[in-house]
Amino acid sequence: MKLATLRNGRPDGRLVVVSRDLQQAVPADAITPHLLQALADWPDAAPRLAQLSDRLNAGQVPDATPFVPADCMAPLPRCFQWCDGSAFLNHGRLMERAFGTAPIPQFDTVPVMYQGAADDFLGPCEDVPLPDEALGIDFEGEFGVIVGPVPMGVTPAAALGAVRLLVQLNDWSLRALGPREMQSGFGFLQAKPSTSFAPVAVTPDELGPHWQDGRVHLELEVHWNGEAFGHPHGAEMNFHFGELIAHAARTRRLSAGTLIGSGTVSNAGRAVGSTCIAERRVIEMLEQGAPRTGFMRFGDRVRMRARMAPGDQAPFGVIDQRVVQAAPVAEVADRTARP
Amino acid sequence: MKLATLRNGRPDGRLVVVSRDLQQAVPADAITPHLLQALADWPDAAPRLAQLSDRLNAGQVPDATPFVPADCMAPLPRCFQWCDGSAFLNHGRLMERAFGTAPIPQFDTVPVMYQGAADDFLGPCEDVPLPDEALGIDFEGEFGVIVGPVPMGVTPAAALGAVRLLVQLNDWSLRALGPREMQSGFGFLQAKPSTSFAPVAVTPDELGPHWQDGRVHLELEVHWNGEAFGHPHGAEMNFHFGELIAHAARTRRLSAGTLIGSGTVSNAGRAVGSTCIAERRVIEMLEQGAPRTGFMRFGDRVRMRARMAPGDQAPFGVIDQRVVQAAPVAEVADRTARP
Repeated sequence: MKLATLRNGRPDGRLVVVSRDLQQAVPADAITPHLLQALADWPDAAPRLAQLSDRLNAGQVPDATPFVPADCMAPLPRCFQWCDGSAFLNHGRLMERAFGTAPIPQFDTVPVMYQGAADDFLGPCEDVPLPDEALGIDFEGEFGVIVGPVPMGVTPAAALGAVRLLVQLNDWSLRALGPREMQSGFGFLQAKPSTSFAPVAVTPDELGPHWQDGRVHLELEVHWNGEAFGHPHGAEMNFHFGELIAHAARTRRLSAGTLIGSGTVSNAGRAVGSTCIAERRVIEMLEQGAPRTGFMRFGDRVRMRARMAPGDQAPFGVIDQRVVQAAPVAEVADRTARP
Repeated sequence: MKLATLRNGRPDGRLVVVSRDLQQAVPADAITPHLLQALADWPDAAPRLAQLSDRLNAGQVPDATPFVPADCMAPLPRCFQWCDGSAFLNHGRLMERAFGTAPIPQFDTVPVMYQGAADDFLGPCEDVPLPDEALGIDFEGEFGVIVGPVPMGVTPAAALGAVRLLVQLNDWSLRALGPREMQSGFGFLQAKPSTSFAPVAVTPDELGPHWQDGRVHLELEVHWNGEAFGHPHGAEMNFHFGELIAHAARTRRLSAGTLIGSGTVSNAGRAVGSTCIAERRVIEMLEQGAPRTGFMRFGDRVRMRARMAPGDQAPFGVIDQRVVQAAPVAEVADRTARP
């Protein structure tokens, strides 16, 4: 099944079930108010949501309405934990050169992962407010999984059984702030503003053979201001999602609704391009002696979608966002007064 | 007012108002189900909670019952964001020597802060399950603040106005895992298991003159297995809480209920001791050539409380916990099946 969250003035939004072709939606309020609650009650809620999904896909829900991604929040607008790995080692190796940082110990054998902010995710078509172009505004295309409860010390194989939903996301990054935060050893904080999500979260079965070995076997296609930027494949992920979940759970249990990210999708073959600007810049540096591509400017748009044959469907829908200058503080203060 | 959360089988627990002397408690369910909800509805909920608190302190609540810290969860059992600073620079300077890490850029002028896991906090008397003594089990005594909504780009002075509650916490740390996570640049994750909290969160007015300049002007007293370990003073915090909040909000807004920590309370004067073992070990190394104190063993207890004259009151109550070996995975799996 496919799930999305519509804005309703509340921080968790209103859960809807979306048809497989992303054309129709039907409210799921009668089953559970929002996705965070559904994840807490998954054994009870999931079968009922699946039943509604089956009826919707069979054309048996008379009150279904058109699905409008512009009305969407992130499918999970906030949660209690967001851990982002860096499981495409090609990306990590390039970023080491970009930042000029020391090699990461045990890079090939132990995943690296940072703890992200989970309190305020952005929807697929929402503007992305940031304070200053000089911070080096960059996108990072990723896949992610949302899990049920995970015990401390889980094995990678068992961890895969905790996967409830798959998502596609943009891990917004501010490159001018990254190196200092890495050098401090405390990790990313200001360098990682609110993360954005494609409109629908999907159960693994929706991807058929494209969910395999704990990886999303799909290309992630990125356009920047309408120009093709890259379309690397998710199959090249060096650590699978079970390994990432087990890494996060080594010294603590994870509660239902925890989100785990793949890190920037990146392939060794350079012909497929990149899903972040920093990677292209370091490749330019290596191949041409200096970076030629700048970071994003206010007004720029980025569009991301996974591609699934046949018919070139986007199983998670499309992220299509514009970067804008954040409002002055007084004005922002009103926006944060959540109803 | 003083607030605590009693276990009720739900992840957010049941909110109670506690008397100033921590002797009596009264359920606050009629006002708001739990503290996370109270923080979301603060302008409405706070005055009503304060009224109940006034009546309780005046002895006018007939159905008040004895307050039992052993029945408590963390005052805020989970939230959507937990950012921990390291605002006592004496601690940071000692830890650089302990870990042998490179000096942090702009250490004196820009706070360092890591993003912590907020999904599963521990109560003041709960056992602390950890997988292996060899991971270097250590405590870190800290103060923290819980804020209302904070706009992106807030100033340090304005940020202080967003402080709703003060807390006292133990930022459990696994020292064998810290150096690799710092060297990766991605920051602490496995090195920071679930954080523990003293039983009550208090509004700033409860501390009177001891909440001043955005700092908790109290000693934090630590006992390890019954022996005095340290009692450094909160006034020596180099960055105040407004500066820490503003740091966290530089590139994103913070939602209501975000928790911001001070980092390990630490004083330059060595006579007052430490609030973590790692600090004592590096001082032993500097003064005696080698660390002499080991880390915690399973079965060890740590007790922490802030001290407030007169009468030597503990305004946040007392953390008194035992470290235990985590149960094998199968058994833990049942415990994580939250009702």
